[in-house]
Amino acid sequence: MSTGGDDRIAVEAAAMRRALELAANGPARGVNPRVGCVILSPDGTVLAEGWHRGAGTAHAEVDALGRLSPGDAVGATAVVTLEPCNHTGRTGPCAVALLDAGIARVVFAVADPGEHSSGGAEHLRAGGVDVDGGLLAAEAEEFLGDWLFAARHHRPYVTVKWASSLDGRAAAADGTSQWITGPEARLDVHRRRAAHDAIAVGTGTLLADDPSLTARGADGDLLDAQPVPVVFGRRAVPAGAALTRHPHAPIIVDGHDLDADLRDLAKRGIRSLFVEGGPTLASAFLSAGLADTVLVYLAPALLGGDRLAVGDLGVTTIGEARRHEFAAVERLGDDVLLVAHPVSSSAPRSSTPERN
Amino acid sequence: MSTGGDDRIAVEAAAMRRALELAANGPARGVNPRVGCVILSPDGTVLAEGWHRGAGTAHAEVDALGRLSPGDAVGATAVVTLEPCNHTGRTGPCAVALLDAGIARVVFAVADPGEHSSGGAEHLRAGGVDVDGGLLAAEAEEFLGDWLFAARHHRPYVTVKWASSLDGRAAAADGTSQWITGPEARLDVHRRRAAHDAIAVGTGTLLADDPSLTARGADGDLLDAQPVPVVFGRRAVPAGAALTRHPHAPIIVDGHDLDADLRDLAKRGIRSLFVEGGPTLASAFLSAGLADTVLVYLAPALLGGDRLAVGDLGVTTIGEARRHEFAAVERLGDDVLLVAHPVSSSAPRSSTPERN
Repeated sequence: MSTGGDDRIAVEAAAMRRALELAANGPARGVNPRVGCVILSPDGTVLAEGWHRGAGTAHAEVDALGRLSPGDAVGATAVVTLEPCNHTGRTGPCAVALLDAGIARVVFAVADPGEHSSGGAEHLRAGGVDVDGGLLAAEAEEFLGDWLFAARHHRPYVTVKWASSLDGRAAAADGTSQWITGPEARLDVHRRRAAHDAIAVGTGTLLADDPSLTARGADGDLLDAQPVPVVFGRRAVPAGAALTRHPHAPIIVDGHDLDADLRDLAKRGIRSLFVEGGPTLASAFLSAGLADTVLVYLAPALLGGDRLAVGDLGVTTIGEARRHEFAAVERLGDDVLLVAHPVSSSAPRSSTPERN
Repeated sequence: MSTGGDDRIAVEAAAMRRALELAANGPARGVNPRVGCVILSPDGTVLAEGWHRGAGTAHAEVDALGRLSPGDAVGATAVVTLEPCNHTGRTGPCAVALLDAGIARVVFAVADPGEHSSGGAEHLRAGGVDVDGGLLAAEAEEFLGDWLFAARHHRPYVTVKWASSLDGRAAAADGTSQWITGPEARLDVHRRRAAHDAIAVGTGTLLADDPSLTARGADGDLLDAQPVPVVFGRRAVPAGAALTRHPHAPIIVDGHDLDADLRDLAKRGIRSLFVEGGPTLASAFLSAGLADTVLVYLAPALLGGDRLAVGDLGVTTIGEARRHEFAAVERLGDDVLLVAHPVSSSAPRSSTPERN
């Protein structure tokens, strides 16, 4: 590159910002990440731009290279938001495409956490390409959010939500619970449903409450984004269940091996799961240490009785308490929302920004 | 009075403010209220001041009149924070003393709610005295606080406090609970203990936990004000209980008729009761609708299991939920304090300011 060191850094950082903008054109949900790519000439001129449009289509690097004539990219720099892949799937490895095009330098933001797709940087270096990772890494990590979490942990980011009275009950003795919390809290729940890829319910709650599992606005209309309903359990979904009218077909999982179920969901492109449906399912996720965020909508009411929002967690003594920390405490109308994260989670907090 | 109407109002308001300052010299606890009195000449000059120093001593009006020579108060105005009493107890009725002294006008802030002591204004008017009530009533009501509540409701103002995990548990399965909440929350509890006349514990908790029931600072030293320990229940206090080393001798009550127990405590001068000791006692107060404030110290931990902070409340369906409203939501270190009041309490909220 003919520009000086500081100039080069500034030019490449600007290109990376542009690559992140391009990436945002891709689909926010699905198996593949959103990736953007900018090809720079040795003097820092933008030669081409590209982004990934979803599974089965060209990766960002290939999309950008495809806009150039053969030979145009020789000696050029590819600035890409995610480490170029080294994997032949429905498309060929990007590392190979970049080498073939004569790219001299590759700058990426975040290393590819994929089991099968990583190693692109190594492959490029072995081919004589100058490779630098980590440019604008924090911005890119935040942008990739749940995709990165799912790719790193082989499971969706899990939020467990419940609504309870001040004394921890989810319903009165006869099972009635509509409405413990007020309209502001319910609207907040619906906004969060829409922000998640999927919403989980146990068959017990499905049979007892016949929930629609849709994300709705204050007027009751469906929001634009709808979470895929996921039913945990072995009991059949009744033919006339409200769930059958959901815009997305439900995914049914066994529920007896949550780790396996979550791996399966991640493979289907579910990056974030909103666990809402029933004390049994909530307690199972909490017991297994699989709740990355806990959301408690607390109503200023007392119920007593035995309809608890959370059941047994296998904690026998106070030293085994599942410690969390409050990330946010908000008043929502008459209610209070408490957002908590486990203190020693396997899930790094930096990659799991609080959703709204 | 020789001054004009507006002047008179200003002079009397200034005298009432002074009377409230004088009242504050009296003892903050006990059966009697703190009362102050200022005697004004017809031209608005302060002739004498007085205040009540506690049960068995002169009332504020008599204290002020006692500083004058016979005849000095003829035609004068008595400005007093509480309606002059009409009751012969350990001292004679103030209404009679004011009449005998030749007082021409009486201005008071708050009507006497006492069953036996009220009627002073009427008696004075019948004797030809010009009587006005309600001057600086809000300030005086706030100043009288718990005394006024206890006098009006014939029971102490009751605060029910518990500490629980996010899922409503007060302890782990084996009963261990030290410490669910952190040092900031515990310090807040001790400050509130010191601000109450008495602290209540059930015999179950007394026998299980052997609590000291003292109010202590961060260094473990006793705070200046100590609540009187009140033990609810029929089981005997063990001879070596920590409670026996409390600065105040405990009051033991039966616990099977909370209304009667609270009336009894009010007669003993207990104006405010901090109910801390155990789910059984807390649930009894909540069930009976006798909690004027609910304080929940919520730790960001999950426990599961059956050691609930609140037991059964006799609520069978959601419509019977005991509705409250949040008066405050505060973060205390790692924990959250929720302050709630019942929505339709017999206790008027205006007379029950949130303590410190």
